Amino acid sequence: MAKNIEPVYYGEYLQLDKLLDAQHPHSPRYGAEAHDETLFIIVHQVYELWFKQVLHELKSVLALFQSAAIADQDLITVVHRLDRVKAIQTLMNDQVGIIETMTPQEFLAFRDYLLPASGFQSIQFKELEIILGLTRKRRVAFDQQSFYNRLSNEHRTHLEALEEQPSLFDRIDAWLARMPYLEFAGFSFWSLYQDAVKNMLASDEHIIEENDTLTAAEKEQELAALDATRENFAALFDSDKYQQAQADGRVRLSQHALLSALFISLYREEPVFNLPFQVITSLADIDEKLTIWRYKHAMMVQRMIGSKIGTGGSSGHDYLRKTTESNRVFADFFAMATYLIPKAELPALPDHVKRTMGFWVAGLELASGELDL
Amino acid sequence: MAKNIEPVYYGEYLQLDKLLDAQHPHSPRYGAEAHDETLFIIVHQVYELWFKQVLHELKSVLALFQSAAIADQDLITVVHRLDRVKAIQTLMNDQVGIIETMTPQEFLAFRDYLLPASGFQSIQFKELEIILGLTRKRRVAFDQQSFYNRLSNEHRTHLEALEEQPSLFDRIDAWLARMPYLEFAGFSFWSLYQDAVKNMLASDEHIIEENDTLTAAEKEQELAALDATRENFAALFDSDKYQQAQADGRVRLSQHALLSALFISLYREEPVFNLPFQVITSLADIDEKLTIWRYKHAMMVQRMIGSKIGTGGSSGHDYLRKTTESNRVFADFFAMATYLIPKAELPALPDHVKRTMGFWVAGLELASGELDL
Amino acid sequence: MAKNIEPVYYGEYLQLDKLLDAQHPHSPRYGAEAHDETLFIIVHQVYELWFKQVLHELKSVLALFQSAAIADQDLITVVHRLDRVKAIQTLMNDQVGIIETMTPQEFLAFRDYLLPASGFQSIQFKELEIILGLTRKRRVAFDQQSFYNRLSNEHRTHLEALEEQPSLFDRIDAWLARMPYLEFAGFSFWSLYQDAVKNMLASDEHIIEENDTLTAAEKEQELAALDATRENFAALFDSDKYQQAQADGRVRLSQHALLSALFISLYREEPVFNLPFQVITSLADIDEKLTIWRYKHAMMVQRMIGSKIGTGGSSGHDYLRKTTESNRVFADFFAMATYLIPKAELPALPDHVKRTMGFWVAGLELASGELDL
Amino acid sequence: MAKNIEPVYYGEYLQLDKLLDAQHPHSPRYGAEAHDETLFIIVHQVYELWFKQVLHELKSVLALFQSAAIADQDLITVVHRLDRVKAIQTLMNDQVGIIETMTPQEFLAFRDYLLPASGFQSIQFKELEIILGLTRKRRVAFDQQSFYNRLSNEHRTHLEALEEQPSLFDRIDAWLARMPYLEFAGFSFWSLYQDAVKNMLASDEHIIEENDTLTAAEKEQELAALDATRENFAALFDSDKYQQAQADGRVRLSQHALLSALFISLYREEPVFNLPFQVITSLADIDEKLTIWRYKHAMMVQRMIGSKIGTGGSSGHDYLRKTTESNRVFADFFAMATYLIPKAELPALPDHVKRTMGFWVAGLELASGELDL
Repeated sequence: MAKNIEPVYYGEYLQLDKLLDAQHPHSPRYGAEAHDETLFIIVHQVYELWFKQVLHELKSVLALFQSAAIADQDLITVVHRLDRVKAIQTLMNDQVGIIETMTPQEFLAFRDYLLPASGFQSIQFKELEIILGLTRKRRVAFDQQSFYNRLSNEHRTHLEALEEQPSLFDRIDAWLARMPYLEFAGFSFWSLYQDAVKNMLASDEHIIEENDTLTAAEKEQELAALDATRENFAALFDSDKYQQAQADGRVRLSQHALLSALFISLYREEPVFNLPFQVITSLADIDEKLTIWRYKHAMMVQRMIGSKIGTGGSSGHDYLRKTTESNRVFADFFAMATYLIPKAELPALPDHVKRTMGFWVAGLELASGELDL
Repeated sequence: MAKNIEPVYYGEYLQLDKLLDAQHPHSPRYGAEAHDETLFIIVHQVYELWFKQVLHELKSVLALFQSAAIADQDLITVVHRLDRVKAIQTLMNDQVGIIETMTPQEFLAFRDYLLPASGFQSIQFKELEIILGLTRKRRVAFDQQSFYNRLSNEHRTHLEALEEQPSLFDRIDAWLARMPYLEFAGFSFWSLYQDAVKNMLASDEHIIEENDTLTAAEKEQELAALDATRENFAALFDSDKYQQAQADGRVRLSQHALLSALFISLYREEPVFNLPFQVITSLADIDEKLTIWRYKHAMMVQRMIGSKIGTGGSSGHDYLRKTTESNRVFADFFAMATYLIPKAELPALPDHVKRTMGFWVAGLELASGELDL
Repeated sequence: MAKNIEPVYYGEYLQLDKLLDAQHPHSPRYGAEAHDETLFIIVHQVYELWFKQVLHELKSVLALFQSAAIADQDLITVVHRLDRVKAIQTLMNDQVGIIETMTPQEFLAFRDYLLPASGFQSIQFKELEIILGLTRKRRVAFDQQSFYNRLSNEHRTHLEALEEQPSLFDRIDAWLARMPYLEFAGFSFWSLYQDAVKNMLASDEHIIEENDTLTAAEKEQELAALDATRENFAALFDSDKYQQAQADGRVRLSQHALLSALFISLYREEPVFNLPFQVITSLADIDEKLTIWRYKHAMMVQRMIGSKIGTGGSSGHDYLRKTTESNRVFADFFAMATYLIPKAELPALPDHVKRTMGFWVAGLELASGELDL
Repeated sequence: MAKNIEPVYYGEYLQLDKLLDAQHPHSPRYGAEAHDETLFIIVHQVYELWFKQVLHELKSVLALFQSAAIADQDLITVVHRLDRVKAIQTLMNDQVGIIETMTPQEFLAFRDYLLPASGFQSIQFKELEIILGLTRKRRVAFDQQSFYNRLSNEHRTHLEALEEQPSLFDRIDAWLARMPYLEFAGFSFWSLYQDAVKNMLASDEHIIEENDTLTAAEKEQELAALDATRENFAALFDSDKYQQAQADGRVRLSQHALLSALFISLYREEPVFNLPFQVITSLADIDEKLTIWRYKHAMMVQRMIGSKIGTGGSSGHDYLRKTTESNRVFADFFAMATYLIPKAELPALPDHVKRTMGFWVAGLELASGELDL
């Protein structure tokens, strides 16, 4: 095999002629070379390279979820690639520390030459958000309008087209919603589950009332919070309430999908659920790491420019702080703990149910036709 | 020397008999040993050991700042020890990932046995906050009242006494305020500075107005932000406005201290300011790392219990999220960039001024008596 | 449930009275309190706490492998706990940086008071090594003799008893050796495999001969290395050669176990092999991280004492450097790549073989009795 | 100022057209697209970008050391930039974990298409080594000959020219050697130092002899090591012995430079020595981090290809393992602890000596002419 391949050398293979000729600071143009501008360029270029790799992985995962039936073999690949995305994110989060080796005044030495360039103009980052499932109407105000103003027609068209495609969120929601989770023949899980929840909440209520370390005001507040939690549980089984929760932005997944995710989380130690659980967990991890990246990034910007305007001509710090929470995609998986109950209080799965799930997870959804849905 | 010392062995020296006999999970008492409870105990014990080390360093730094005159030799020690604190904080922030190797359901298996234990009850962490300079009235509501309810009399007395002592914030403020920063003989720095600021803000205003990528609404918003920044600058030199800024919580340092910190940041490359600048930067770093720890900690809690109540009997996640921003101590240093101007626009320091500062930094504040203040 | 539990408080739960009263520097006894001795104590105590946690996880994993048949459910737990061990190791490796915030001279200020205490006296670390599978005769010379001299009778007896128990290495070897890997009915995998290897090595030989960038001497060296590799492959299928490889210390696993590990690695994307592959990979990761910890530790010691003797009264640095490589346990998994061939050249598994493996992995080894072995 | 600058946009500024069009996997050319080849390309490209940044910093540091007299202001800049190099190295060391998210078999899927490309062909990395001070005759055999065979004439000429220039090692050595360290008027430090050393070694000898945990053989070995240490100390003050130590490769710095580095390390808490000590320490850190990078890199290669040959057509793992130790540049600073004595045993510096050093560190070497050398 190796006989017919042409020899390749390191520099050509990595196209170092292009790569290492792409750093041209602007400060020298204004007769004031700023030593640290090179760092600023390279740090952002490294981010763009990682974004490209993350997009490469996420697009391949998205493709695997397009098929109606996802075999375990595919889920293994999905988990493997999402793990890689997480490893890259960890590195990107630590990388914020590199730009912080530049003092604010070192940044001021070339900041004015970069106007109105701005990280908001990173197309790859927006692609990444869109592919994960961030929709325009969910973006913080700034993003909805201004961001698109800043784009070339070509880029705007490209991103708007991408927004029309199903996102990873959409695919995952559909995949979960396909699961025959309701009534398996002769096994009504959810009624048992709801009883267990009632007990747990009653116990929590008791705990709050007995807790002498809380002020009266706090007890009230905690009991109100408990009622809200009770409402959330109720919504799981009441489609009207559920739709309200979606409308309020308290939840994003479809009702079927959320219940499947919950079922998987509760029975994660069942071999058939091991891979689906890893998929759900990895998506929650990716969401968390992206959130932490936004947060560290916002702090770095505040440190660099204080309350001054950024190179994009807007006070980037406040904007970034806002997106930290609001631009999350898989928050439902992240908050799944709300709906969990102790393993000890879970009903055991009858064997025929396990088998049914075995078929399902094996991707033979057709089989689910035989179930009493 | 070594001749007269008694031999010591690893296990005794580290008192492993105590240390390794301090992990006793409670779940077995209820006939349901939870494998993961050990992790929960050890992760928190490791935090407490690091807290003790951080307190050891911070107390020694506080002591060094008690003397009226701080020699460079002491500042070298201060910077060295604050660097160590930062290294430990980095490790503590990464450690949040360890507890996240426990699934929410694994936590549920023993959560109910720990009521009402809560991280809020960590005396060392409160000591750490108080020594840094977090005062009770600055704590988020919850801390002000409830936290103290939760303490034993002994602990309450201990912490309240500590709150009466000068904190690191107080000492640093006094140290900076002692600096003869105003009018050195024949060199009025601040008027030159204010001119430079005027130019910078005018340029920023121009940038915003010319920025076509902003909507009208955003321009207005940005210009309003710019006015606020202008106000902040004005307050630097107007004690009434400054006191208002303090009252509004926009700034905490005394006016003299803030101006000194600014002067040091602007001339950080002057050898005499190298150490003071490192002190200021390290304190901003420590504040940032503590903030990130709180943020990651809040996310971890949300992930573990969702919107359920925590072992402390309150929805820890919301509380923690609140403290992330509000419990900061050295935010003024962190936002120092607001007041910086490009190095190129800084007036050069006359030699006699450098000498004066040399004396000052050498700790001979008496010399400042000779200056025309 | 929560009703009948006794309330518990943070400080008692974590036994902070013991934990935080276990730091007593010795330097004050000699009238020369060394500020940094506290760091030295706490860093080592944190390591001991992590060792305890790692032992907790490894012992539970060892117990799961004791049963003749390991269900997938158990393998899920094994992988989950080994992942936790890896996360803790990553933190422990970063922790080496903390002790390096102490200058060598700061260490000299109290070093002489600690004689002859030494990290070699950490019982938990030795337990960890023994449980993983490090045997006395495999230890570097120093460990074989001196280490045991340094122990109290009680500790020596304890560790020697532990060495008599099956280690994780033994259990894993037995688990792999049980796999019916040889000739499945009508499917002779290994002959196909050996053909593929022949082609690969022939191609490699060609590559070396054609490589003009190598000197004659280097080509010779590379071809010699290639012959060695050829020998290793040959040994896989020749028990005499294999025993020789074991005797030479080139391989440690039993022949059956190594072939199973290889089979699993080659077909890792088969769902039935996903978990076994994760187990193998995690053990290689743990071995690698432990090796890196030893290496960083050795460098830290050199930096602290240069070529002086350590507190244990011996030049720790050289010793530690030696153990870095020699004290590895799962090096066979780590070097597994030697025996891999490209996926494209792998024969597809017939369905009846997959099913057979399905049974096996499900822990029904009895089923393997029906195979033509 | 901002008025006359041309607007700049993110994509142009970072030249993303070039940067993001530089990833072209070769596997598709052979009809077998390998998903993971993109990761392989991007990971190496990120390393090259970081190499460029590190070179940018090191070259600027090298330039600062060219002047005969280095002002404190310059040393502040040097320390600041070396700190940045360290931060980047930490990230590069963690990055090794990213390539390890690729299984050996995933790598095998495209390995053969990359022959004979090899990381040995990274010109930037060799530049980095040469600028630090790695000379050809100090390289391990492989590097001395083969590496240069692999280069284009242009690259060979470029690197060979670079080897003719003074390296950072040379500049640092000269800078240290210029220090008037010997006999300050009326203060003979070194004789006091040698007495202190004698005591310390006598005490160490006593410790070894009294240590019952050592076998006779070990005691002998330790005492031999102690004699070697004694020899090293003797060599400090005997130029013949010193030259022998250099010839044996036990030390690389010139005798004057080593004694200066030692003096600085011993009196690091003197303000005048704070910056020089930070320079020395940072160079030792950089050397250590580079060593750890080589070590982790060697392990990663072993894991990817086992004992197979690498894409460069040679068994990279063994070679890399060799370079780990041998290609170090600032090992003398790293092993400085060998020559330190406890602070308590140091003679105090007379004021006129401090002043003299003050002049020296201020870069007024001329002043040293006035000293009795």
